[in-house]
Amino acid sequence: MPLPLPVLPEGVDPAWLPPAAFRAVGSRRTLIRGSAPLVETVHGEVAQACRRFGGRVVRGVVPDDAYDLVLDLGTEGQESLADEGFTCARERGTTTVTASGGRGLLYGLFHVVRLGDAAFTGERARETHRPALALRMLDHWDNVAVHPVMGQVERGYAGGSLFWRDGRARGELDRVRAYGRLLAACGINAVSVNNVNVHAAEARLLTDRIGEVADIAGALRPYGIRTHLSVSFAAPITLGGLSTADPLDEAVRGWWAEATRRVYEAIPDFGGYVVKADSEGQPGPFAYGRSHAEGANLLAAALEPFGGTVHWRAFVYDHRQDWRDRTTDRARAAYDHFVPLDGEFAKSAVLQVKHGPMDFQVREPVSPLIGAMPRTRLAVELQATQEYTGQQRHVCWLGPMWSEVLRFRHEHDQSVGELARGGLVAVSNAGDDPFWTGHPLAQANLYSFGRLAWRPDAEPRAVLDEWIGLSFPDAPPQVADGLHAVLDGSWRTYEKYTAPLGVGFMVQPGHHYGPSVDGYEYSPWGTYHFADRDGIGVDRGVKSGTGFAGQYGEPWAGLYASPDTCPDELLLFFHHVPYGHVLKSGKTVIQHIYDTHFEGVEEVEEARSVWASLAGQVDPARHARVAERYEEQLRGAREWRDQVNSYFFRKSGVPDGRGRRIY
Amino acid sequence: MPLPLPVLPEGVDPAWLPPAAFRAVGSRRTLIRGSAPLVETVHGEVAQACRRFGGRVVRGVVPDDAYDLVLDLGTEGQESLADEGFTCARERGTTTVTASGGRGLLYGLFHVVRLGDAAFTGERARETHRPALALRMLDHWDNVAVHPVMGQVERGYAGGSLFWRDGRARGELDRVRAYGRLLAACGINAVSVNNVNVHAAEARLLTDRIGEVADIAGALRPYGIRTHLSVSFAAPITLGGLSTADPLDEAVRGWWAEATRRVYEAIPDFGGYVVKADSEGQPGPFAYGRSHAEGANLLAAALEPFGGTVHWRAFVYDHRQDWRDRTTDRARAAYDHFVPLDGEFAKSAVLQVKHGPMDFQVREPVSPLIGAMPRTRLAVELQATQEYTGQQRHVCWLGPMWSEVLRFRHEHDQSVGELARGGLVAVSNAGDDPFWTGHPLAQANLYSFGRLAWRPDAEPRAVLDEWIGLSFPDAPPQVADGLHAVLDGSWRTYEKYTAPLGVGFMVQPGHHYGPSVDGYEYSPWGTYHFADRDGIGVDRGVKSGTGFAGQYGEPWAGLYASPDTCPDELLLFFHHVPYGHVLKSGKTVIQHIYDTHFEGVEEVEEARSVWASLAGQVDPARHARVAERYEEQLRGAREWRDQVNSYFFRKSGVPDGRGRRIY
Repeated sequence: MPLPLPVLPEGVDPAWLPPAAFRAVGSRRTLIRGSAPLVETVHGEVAQACRRFGGRVVRGVVPDDAYDLVLDLGTEGQESLADEGFTCARERGTTTVTASGGRGLLYGLFHVVRLGDAAFTGERARETHRPALALRMLDHWDNVAVHPVMGQVERGYAGGSLFWRDGRARGELDRVRAYGRLLAACGINAVSVNNVNVHAAEARLLTDRIGEVADIAGALRPYGIRTHLSVSFAAPITLGGLSTADPLDEAVRGWWAEATRRVYEAIPDFGGYVVKADSEGQPGPFAYGRSHAEGANLLAAALEPFGGTVHWRAFVYDHRQDWRDRTTDRARAAYDHFVPLDGEFAKSAVLQVKHGPMDFQVREPVSPLIGAMPRTRLAVELQATQEYTGQQRHVCWLGPMWSEVLRFRHEHDQSVGELARGGLVAVSNAGDDPFWTGHPLAQANLYSFGRLAWRPDAEPRAVLDEWIGLSFPDAPPQVADGLHAVLDGSWRTYEKYTAPLGVGFMVQPGHHYGPSVDGYEYSPWGTYHFADRDGIGVDRGVKSGTGFAGQYGEPWAGLYASPDTCPDELLLFFHHVPYGHVLKSGKTVIQHIYDTHFEGVEEVEEARSVWASLAGQVDPARHARVAERYEEQLRGAREWRDQVNSYFFRKSGVPDGRGRRIY
Repeated sequence: MPLPLPVLPEGVDPAWLPPAAFRAVGSRRTLIRGSAPLVETVHGEVAQACRRFGGRVVRGVVPDDAYDLVLDLGTEGQESLADEGFTCARERGTTTVTASGGRGLLYGLFHVVRLGDAAFTGERARETHRPALALRMLDHWDNVAVHPVMGQVERGYAGGSLFWRDGRARGELDRVRAYGRLLAACGINAVSVNNVNVHAAEARLLTDRIGEVADIAGALRPYGIRTHLSVSFAAPITLGGLSTADPLDEAVRGWWAEATRRVYEAIPDFGGYVVKADSEGQPGPFAYGRSHAEGANLLAAALEPFGGTVHWRAFVYDHRQDWRDRTTDRARAAYDHFVPLDGEFAKSAVLQVKHGPMDFQVREPVSPLIGAMPRTRLAVELQATQEYTGQQRHVCWLGPMWSEVLRFRHEHDQSVGELARGGLVAVSNAGDDPFWTGHPLAQANLYSFGRLAWRPDAEPRAVLDEWIGLSFPDAPPQVADGLHAVLDGSWRTYEKYTAPLGVGFMVQPGHHYGPSVDGYEYSPWGTYHFADRDGIGVDRGVKSGTGFAGQYGEPWAGLYASPDTCPDELLLFFHHVPYGHVLKSGKTVIQHIYDTHFEGVEEVEEARSVWASLAGQVDPARHARVAERYEEQLRGAREWRDQVNSYFFRKSGVPDGRGRRIY
């Protein structure tokens, strides 16, 4: 039975799967071979497209030559494709996709959809497609109950949760299924359905409320997506009534084994646990004098018999730091905590590391931890939700930033994309907003994440082309040009009007939206710029500073060690320099601050007018929402510019070289 | 029937009415004459004291000479005492209190209680006591429903509301009655029971929920306290279904008249309305092109037939100011808005003016508006709840500050205490905390407010002596010394470690607890210090500044005009000066900042150790609570010191003259 497509509620944006994206497939004759649950998903997709565009689809073992497209779930000679790979070729008027697993066939279909008419013209040599990373995951920071501070979705800027509302599962499984379909179309294959900060209501998803998780898993399964769950390390106490959560305690191990067995009874293909332990107030193994490897291995042991994995987050640092103490450096913390444990993590444990050493700033160096744990499965965590990058009110396409991170080569010439053997994870930016991501253009971040997780060395502009082609299938060419114009440079634009030269954290405390240069300067969060009347930046060098630069291998340790060799964009992350320090660009630090802040605003003004020129050429609802957000972005960018420039002018006393207005 | 005393729940502190405070009265023979509801209150008080301490009390018209105390509600020859005055005299072994109103008799009884044994020794010439101000009021900023940002009590630091919980009246009327008893004992005679920011649930107290207010009024009435209500100017629309709230609209006037008539049906001695209009988002007459006098007179007209009063707050300013705009000055706003309306307010309207031109900072000049509206009944508003003065975690006895305000003499030699013909009002600092005010020593603020409202020229240290005598009746003399040591200078101590030289608003945005020097610097709230690397302060002079100093009469306008004559403690409020500016104290501004911040912390350390030395000599629960709060105060004071000193050192580059540690 072909699986019917989920029906979207009235007014919900189709994102990158509008009906018109299926015109090429839907107007042709398709043969589907093979049998597996996901083949029904594939059949449903093609059948729906054919209904709309007049094509035909049949199943069975019949000759290929009467068909434009053959989708073939074979079983022989395709071991190398595993579950997710596929091949695509075209000869003698027939395009053939082969796969050995249901996911592969689904991904192959979406590949053909992306190609559009090009999939059905000329000849195509056989290409084999396999994901570079086996796990391509979204972590939803969704709360079941509305948290008094964090709301329904922690750091959520796209409405409510797709899964939960006011303490309950929403049960709107068609919307969940539609979400899974979008994720499958960009290659995502795993979703964690609740916040890593596991509050009381959320903790119970593991036990008596597992049925609610099973319903979500059932809606995502037809799109090849496994469901994961964030759990509390203290669950044996809070849920099990034990007196300890010590990972070496036999009763604790037994409790987790039994709890996990029941989870798999409810969800046979359950993906595993996500754990934030000993971090920002969450419980963890430190309370029992145990290491994080011992903590992670406890859960790995419970999951291993069922093929599940524990994702253990490396985001562990002192969030009660004294700002007076310049010897402690939060940037060092993950490395200091975890490198000594390399080799001690079990096979079913994945250490999940944020891409930078701090916390998803618009500019950070790549975490040195990623290059320093060869005997540990690492997953790299990105942030699709724009906590520090404009909160989906500002356009900030993160594809180029993520690509830089993934292509960054640690010592022994291994890129982050290669080192992330445990997968690539993003904190989700999706919610029940009609546009899924609040800002319609933020859909590009979600799409780009999936595609970069599939192929970390992909060219981000090419990924953006895919997204544009799918999302705006009938638009004239100037729409694609316009979208590139407003998206390509948007990350650097955002960087320009917010945080100069890698300094970070000049944001409003708590909610992190809008400028506050000293907002985190005297805080316990380990986030400082040390600006005084003479200069700014954090000395993280080995000789005179915190030593963080020494956590890198070469060539980075050497490059970061000196302000003369440190890349400009990270200068203030690694060094405290006078305002008059001359950058490689030839400008002084202070003039760079002024210039980039003026430029950033000008670039937003320009992007806004490019967007305005697209009126009438894109869907009116999308156009209106983006136009409205540009007003807020421009207001925000001006506020950033004026506050940051005024702050540094008042502190440095150095006038702008071009005499522009600073308050 | 003597009114039984309210029974306090287990563990609730008796504040300044512990049983032992009644020993002198309770161990003697008392005769009570007269008939009125409040005479039953007086009888109940004396009867309870006699039960405890072995005295006797009788009622009736019998000869005085067998009695130690005669409480005489007479009707002849005492017109001048009005409802609240009383006389007290002692001759031939009998102490006699006379009054012509029930409140007067009650206040007279509490006067005798305060005197203790001294009331019953020797002779006492007849003294007449009358309140200088007819209205002595507390404004509770209590929300009926828990507000998502402001909670149950806006700016409340003493637990929940005494009146409301989770959207309903608590109905714990014995606790309300006990509260009224405490207030009567310090002379307070009016309470407004809900927040001036009137949210949806609270608005309905005026109409269908008036019964809940009537219950509270019933509990407060036996202590001579009239109940007032904060109302929304938009009520005719939101509650009445009208299309306008225009104060000149006949239907609107009719709606208020009818609504008010119903209020008086439920509460015959209802005090009146409190209104915050056109301020911080509250609705008001500006929406209809009407003046604030027209707005206030609308409500005055509705209240006037019943003897009620509208308290119309003068706290009107632009809270969406652009920090870049140095010409707009929030300090000017109340004067600019209201002085042109002098003489236009109806008889039943009182204009309620905050004591300073900004917002309850630890140091502000006295509001020039208070001296500039001779033809308007003004009430002066103080803040007992310590929003900006340590939030009842820090000891900050405000008696001296309030006394300075009340004795401040505007032009024509009229003191604020004399100009406040409409009464003295304080935002309440009480809640359902076992100690009523969170910090047990903050009870002294509530008590001092009542007594200063009774007699604005009272010596605050004498008021504190009263409070100590009542609250710690059996304590050895070193307790009184210790309490003076920790309280007398506590306001100036708090000023020292927080905001130097009148600068204000260097606090964490939103909650206002803890330091953030730039917290309000780039905000829309009109609260700036303009510190740069060279100097600090706001030029509010007439020639080069905002002109605010010109709103004063002489001598103040002249004194404030120049940094040479401006009092040191207000220098940065009125002038922008270089860090090297030499104060009248002989110190530079920057050295003053450093010195006061170090001194402030030292004074907290000293106070904490004085308090520690009183262990065993005061009630253990009180001692423990205060001791615990001193730990937080000391932590907070050190944080203030280090952040403020570091901020100004980093900005000015001037080292501390005494070489102390600055970060």
